Amino acid sequence: MSKVRVHNFSISLDGFGTGDGMTLEDPFGHAGRRLHDWMFATQFGRSLFGQDGGGVGVDQAFAERNVLGIGAEIMGAGKFGPPGWQEDATWRGWWGEDPPFHTPVFVMTRHEAEPMVMEGGTTFHFVAGSPKEVLDLARQAAGGLDVRVGGGPTTVRGFLEADLVDELHVVQVPIVLGRGTRLWEGLEGTEERFAIEAVTSPSGVVHLTFTRR
Amino acid sequence: MSKVRVHNFSISLDGFGTGDGMTLEDPFGHAGRRLHDWMFATQFGRSLFGQDGGGVGVDQAFAERNVLGIGAEIMGAGKFGPPGWQEDATWRGWWGEDPPFHTPVFVMTRHEAEPMVMEGGTTFHFVAGSPKEVLDLARQAAGGLDVRVGGGPTTVRGFLEADLVDELHVVQVPIVLGRGTRLWEGLEGTEERFAIEAVTSPSGVVHLTFTRR
Repeated sequence: MSKVRVHNFSISLDGFGTGDGMTLEDPFGHAGRRLHDWMFATQFGRSLFGQDGGGVGVDQAFAERNVLGIGAEIMGAGKFGPPGWQEDATWRGWWGEDPPFHTPVFVMTRHEAEPMVMEGGTTFHFVAGSPKEVLDLARQAAGGLDVRVGGGPTTVRGFLEADLVDELHVVQVPIVLGRGTRLWEGLEGTEERFAIEAVTSPSGVVHLTFTRR
Repeated sequence: MSKVRVHNFSISLDGFGTGDGMTLEDPFGHAGRRLHDWMFATQFGRSLFGQDGGGVGVDQAFAERNVLGIGAEIMGAGKFGPPGWQEDATWRGWWGEDPPFHTPVFVMTRHEAEPMVMEGGTTFHFVAGSPKEVLDLARQAAGGLDVRVGGGPTTVRGFLEADLVDELHVVQVPIVLGRGTRLWEGLEGTEERFAIEAVTSPSGVVHLTFTRR
């Protein structure tokens, strides 16, 4: 059975997966790039922008797992665009015409729209339904490979609540955001279902991995 | 100048420093002992109960710093006793007649009471005032040594908000409590005032140290 995986999901010390006030200019709100600076400094992160170089240490080792063996992504509506993107017929995601997914991507939204076929193998499908229902669609599209739940925090939390996540990689960044959307809200006792490891990085982040028992 | 230090302050993955529903039977509410099991497994933790043995690894190295060079403790009313202890004239703290402080201890409360002189050098003083005002009292009593802010989370948060903390040792335990009292609430940007280190322990906890820049 293909697995459901979450990778490179960054949170602040106080558990926020995005900041407050997400806009077109600030996709992560007042958090800015601070939650993801660790990734942009890796070879994997730089390659997303067509840049050479970048670190190949523990941050890279975790970061590049994001794409290995993945056949489809599921994301929340809030990851696909800024508030109100559903009313903008020209919106095609943050990532340009060749998004870095290269697989089918299922955007969870009640907004009905035709699939968007992008370059490089990415197709955005707009689907409504429970986490389980959307996962069934994504699994069919993944061709036996794993399904990544790509965020944001509300979406990851929904899949954890429904006990659908096999592997969860959380990256704790040493900042106190104070406001935004929390990952762990309502997830009391989640640790009982997982074996948990923590490892620090010279970059200052802590990688936490949760593997289903 | 003597320093203000916080040690062995355990929080859950979701940032709770105590659980929900604190009572005489459950000083940490539904968290039980789970936030402090790491410490009770160390030589330091076992010695608090007069027991031999215990680990001497990284958890012990951090845990025993709690008492080194400390001349006074400040604690919140919620650490001294269960809700309503102010109305119980026989209440003398959780710790018996020889509490493990061995210094003056300043309990922040609007409840007026005479100092309680215990065995082993501990005297409980009951004082009202701002963090700064109570710190001034504790510093006078500490005889040039450092002052420990002993918790709970609301008290530690108050001293962080007032920018009075020089060293903060937080121990993140891999459990999701879901409810209780959060440490980081309202502390946006706190990281800017500190150099932060993280180190993992074989016990599964992550030690985070914040040293004032």
